[in-house]
Amino acid sequence: MPIIVKKFGGTSVGNVDLIRGIARRLAKEYHRGNQLVLVVSAMAKTTDNLFSLAYEITQHPSRREMDMLLTAGERISMSLLSLSLLEEGIPSISFTGSQSGIITDNHHGNAKILKVNAFRIHEELAKDKIVIVAGFQGVSTAKEITTLGRGGSDTSAVALACYLGADKCEIYTDVDGVYTADPRIVPKAGFIREIGYADMLALAYNGSKVLHPRAVEFACKYQVPVEVKSSFTFADGTMIRAEESPKEVLMEDRVVRAIAHKDNLICYRILPDQKALELLNVWHHEIFKISKMEATLELYVEAKYESEIDYLLSQHGVEPISKETEIGFVILVGLGLAADPAFVASVMQLCKDLSLKRIAHSERSLELMMPARQVAEAVAMLHDSLIGVNQ
Amino acid sequence: MPIIVKKFGGTSVGNVDLIRGIARRLAKEYHRGNQLVLVVSAMAKTTDNLFSLAYEITQHPSRREMDMLLTAGERISMSLLSLSLLEEGIPSISFTGSQSGIITDNHHGNAKILKVNAFRIHEELAKDKIVIVAGFQGVSTAKEITTLGRGGSDTSAVALACYLGADKCEIYTDVDGVYTADPRIVPKAGFIREIGYADMLALAYNGSKVLHPRAVEFACKYQVPVEVKSSFTFADGTMIRAEESPKEVLMEDRVVRAIAHKDNLICYRILPDQKALELLNVWHHEIFKISKMEATLELYVEAKYESEIDYLLSQHGVEPISKETEIGFVILVGLGLAADPAFVASVMQLCKDLSLKRIAHSERSLELMMPARQVAEAVAMLHDSLIGVNQ
Repeated sequence: MPIIVKKFGGTSVGNVDLIRGIARRLAKEYHRGNQLVLVVSAMAKTTDNLFSLAYEITQHPSRREMDMLLTAGERISMSLLSLSLLEEGIPSISFTGSQSGIITDNHHGNAKILKVNAFRIHEELAKDKIVIVAGFQGVSTAKEITTLGRGGSDTSAVALACYLGADKCEIYTDVDGVYTADPRIVPKAGFIREIGYADMLALAYNGSKVLHPRAVEFACKYQVPVEVKSSFTFADGTMIRAEESPKEVLMEDRVVRAIAHKDNLICYRILPDQKALELLNVWHHEIFKISKMEATLELYVEAKYESEIDYLLSQHGVEPISKETEIGFVILVGLGLAADPAFVASVMQLCKDLSLKRIAHSERSLELMMPARQVAEAVAMLHDSLIGVNQ
Repeated sequence: MPIIVKKFGGTSVGNVDLIRGIARRLAKEYHRGNQLVLVVSAMAKTTDNLFSLAYEITQHPSRREMDMLLTAGERISMSLLSLSLLEEGIPSISFTGSQSGIITDNHHGNAKILKVNAFRIHEELAKDKIVIVAGFQGVSTAKEITTLGRGGSDTSAVALACYLGADKCEIYTDVDGVYTADPRIVPKAGFIREIGYADMLALAYNGSKVLHPRAVEFACKYQVPVEVKSSFTFADGTMIRAEESPKEVLMEDRVVRAIAHKDNLICYRILPDQKALELLNVWHHEIFKISKMEATLELYVEAKYESEIDYLLSQHGVEPISKETEIGFVILVGLGLAADPAFVASVMQLCKDLSLKRIAHSERSLELMMPARQVAEAVAMLHDSLIGVNQ
């Protein structure tokens, strides 16, 4: 019988009505004979509220106790979903990250998964139960409760799918799937039905918020097919897998597959000295980009982490040389863009009215740095010129 | 019957004895029932010799006439191979790029393949012949003879494999396949039996000379399985395909798959003005990297192209702000390296005695810029620390 792992994010389980709606849909799928493992995030805002409560008590909470606190969030959502399934007459059981055997390192707040010992899940599936697992959490080799940091629930789901040999990992979220650009900026952005791991990784890594790069890396490394789809409609979403069907394009043509962006970054410029290395060693915030330019180390982070990072720097006695705000990036993703002088020239021509501060490329992306306020205009204009109307 | 496309590079067909050796091996394979299409480069040094002859006549030869001249090289090797096969009693026929239906754009010296109309190949395969095709060349939509530029024969082979629906494209060359670093620098570098398109692309793009990035992009886009192997031993080489088997690694561990390098680059720094854009538009030399830093455009190219590029710049009235020589890059390729502060810190620590001028990363590589003279030491040291002994 096929095993399917389904992950529901915070907005998908944001209130009891939504949870009941999901339970009803899952009941139907259960009766069709699929073995289902559900990974849930905390209900929307729960984690933020728990954070706020802790920060009312202290500005610098113990990371171990924070993990204890935050992991309560998924306990609530997973048990509510289990209760809803039982109400539908479906046998179900919920497990914490620890009970479900997600073993991590000891890095509180940003733990990495080392292995999965999911025998309890297998046992319960064998009893025809739907198994619900708390995402975002695990247990360290020192038996402490850990959280996986950003993208944690997506990563839990992909890791479980890998370990269980699932046919598919479905990531249910508040959007339909992946588009050729953010549809809020580019209304005519095309829906992408199928995308390869490498393109998806470049997108996720460069700002697409649909799936966390960490989960994509995991899926890629273990070749887990992942579908991103809407938890509101359950309609077909975007399939992410190794074999993307070849497109009917001219053979050696450049193809801009999609456009990602970041529009609110801060760059901390610091000296690359021993203190800086120690700082990087214990860094546990999400970071968009690290680079070294001559004698300066540059750290690009989301503006929302500013006060936390100011504090982290001061803790390590690192005094920034400068702090630049309102930085934006627009990233074109696709094969054949790399090191193509004529393509770079055409992009520079298209962007002649923007303030392109830097241009760089990797083997499947071209990255444009500009003031944050120009990002929306740049994405819309470049999508128009390089991708065009719905695919 | 399976169709296999085999490409033999210049060193593999470097003299008549080598060509006869290949013909004998192919005769055996023919009798096992495979349909064979062979793509050949010009014999080693032929292209360079033809170049020299032209440059004795003029320093600035017409690109169209150069294409006429250079395409003679593959005519020689393909007909010699066909003669050798006939001597072995194997029916065979050789075709130019034009006869084999490789249609390109009109960019002399660096044409891109637009499509392949290979009906003549199919007709001859149906008559049980081995078909030999001149690599590196095609015919433009304006019916002019074109050459495909660097990596051209690899690209011809992959394009033909794609068009013919071949089971595999084998690239025969003077090395066994892909290693975790250049074995001339790192004697204990590990042999890679299987690698995914995305990792191979990052390697090829960053300096691995085994297969040209353009051919890898093509293979990736059309999902053509490619094997790189030795033309001297015909032993199993490195398979490049979508599905790399998952490795037995800790689940979320960083994996440095291999290390690429470049050790003799020049950086031209120029103003990004209209003249520069026009220059980029007609650029036809291989370029390693283009980037823009504030008000400067940087072009990184192999030192061997220096005089040609000096001339190109002067032709376009572009005066470089500066020209930096003896630049090296070492590039670590693998999943999970991106934006990992602790990993960057550990690499910086390892490189503390080197002059790291820049560090940058993409979603699957970390790139270190340093003086060319430090590259070999850096590759050996980083391979030792991050990859270790034979895999």
